[in-house]
Amino acid sequence: MREITSRDNRIVKLCEQLAARKYRDRLGLYLIEGENLLEEAVREGAAVETVLIRKGYTGLPPGMEEKTFVLEEGLFRKLALTDTSQGVLAIVRKPEVSRAALMEKGAAGNFVVLDRLQDPGNIGTIIRTADAAGYGLVAVMKGTADVFSPKVVRAAAGSLFRVPVVFMDDYDELVSFIKAAGGKLAATCFDTDRYYYDVDLRENVALIIGNEGNGISKELIERADIKIKIPMTGAIESLNAAVAAAVLMYESMRQRACREW
Amino acid sequence: MREITSRDNRIVKLCEQLAARKYRDRLGLYLIEGENLLEEAVREGAAVETVLIRKGYTGLPPGMEEKTFVLEEGLFRKLALTDTSQGVLAIVRKPEVSRAALMEKGAAGNFVVLDRLQDPGNIGTIIRTADAAGYGLVAVMKGTADVFSPKVVRAAAGSLFRVPVVFMDDYDELVSFIKAAGGKLAATCFDTDRYYYDVDLRENVALIIGNEGNGISKELIERADIKIKIPMTGAIESLNAAVAAAVLMYESMRQRACREW
Repeated sequence: MREITSRDNRIVKLCEQLAARKYRDRLGLYLIEGENLLEEAVREGAAVETVLIRKGYTGLPPGMEEKTFVLEEGLFRKLALTDTSQGVLAIVRKPEVSRAALMEKGAAGNFVVLDRLQDPGNIGTIIRTADAAGYGLVAVMKGTADVFSPKVVRAAAGSLFRVPVVFMDDYDELVSFIKAAGGKLAATCFDTDRYYYDVDLRENVALIIGNEGNGISKELIERADIKIKIPMTGAIESLNAAVAAAVLMYESMRQRACREW
Repeated sequence: MREITSRDNRIVKLCEQLAARKYRDRLGLYLIEGENLLEEAVREGAAVETVLIRKGYTGLPPGMEEKTFVLEEGLFRKLALTDTSQGVLAIVRKPEVSRAALMEKGAAGNFVVLDRLQDPGNIGTIIRTADAAGYGLVAVMKGTADVFSPKVVRAAAGSLFRVPVVFMDDYDELVSFIKAAGGKLAATCFDTDRYYYDVDLRENVALIIGNEGNGISKELIERADIKIKIPMTGAIESLNAAVAAAVLMYESMRQRACREW
């Protein structure tokens, strides 16, 4: 383990840059913080490039010493992503995702599609729930907030190391990808009589989750193979996006487990 | 509508105080922000005591002029809860909830119990989902973050005006309240073979949602009438608290709608 004492150090500068999406996009790197997340990154084989610890931190996973740098309290605090940091940060390379390989394994798997979501907590929570509910791929539409921002990474709680993420420039690209993988696009909308529990959601579902304020784009709803709604009692107008995603993804789990389908 | 120009104005001081839980508890008041939330408060009959608008704001609901004060841009910004405020804030009296009346209507309703949750986004999202899924009461255990904090109010998206909230000092009080209302305490835990979709969750369920880090207290799990688990694939250890709550509350909705129960 080496020490870093200067604010002008190359790695300190890199960490600061990675707070901005522009540099995460350009460099293919992102930041993770905390003992659990680093342990999980190592366990899942994520490409941990550099670890930064606060002087005195002792929770390093085995095998990390070579790539670890020790920082004085003040310098560490400057880079930490949260006020209550445990004292460990890491720079991780974004995973390379082969679309061809995904499509081969494709059919029979379920996907989730993020259509221009903006809230990092929602995005991270949806990725975490997808991981838990056996939705093995996240397709991210252009216009969605960065999936590798610190808040998303935190809310995803390690699931970003497991669930592959692919990026789509437009709806044509998305639809051909989903079709090629044998998936059916599923959208929630008001203009349908079918409730989500009346539809077979076990397999090959590409579930679209829409923007928090405006929902799924009209164009994408029109191209959906499955249109469903979630019932709501009383005067409420909508559900939180991560909640809607959870209800639908877990209905797939339930249907696979239960006999009636 | 009157104008407020001084930072020392009584109402300005009151707004500043209401940022702190101590004063919300003591005064029985809380703050709401935004056009939609104020409209919904008025529609649902919430006790809106005072409205504060930024000079030039024109979206006031009818009947509010008498209790509205106009503030200069700078003074309004000082009080606003968000950086992107639409220009309207209101002071609302917390609803008075009669436990006796709740218990009479009690049986056949479903409740949600918040066992020391800390994240305001989770708490608000759970209240919003409870409202949508027909869970007609929220019981809040001592040690839970303030249900009337600005972040909870925002995440609850108006559902706090509809769903009654009761506060419990200890588990004995909670359990006797639930029993008296004819409810069965339901807890998720690892120490069970039953999945949530194998259990009748249609009615009289008091669903406990546990603290984000430590889950439901051991004592409360021991006293639960129904112990269930949510299946998870792969290496994931837990779900977000608001996601777990949503999956379970919507299973109640589904079971009530479907024939198999």
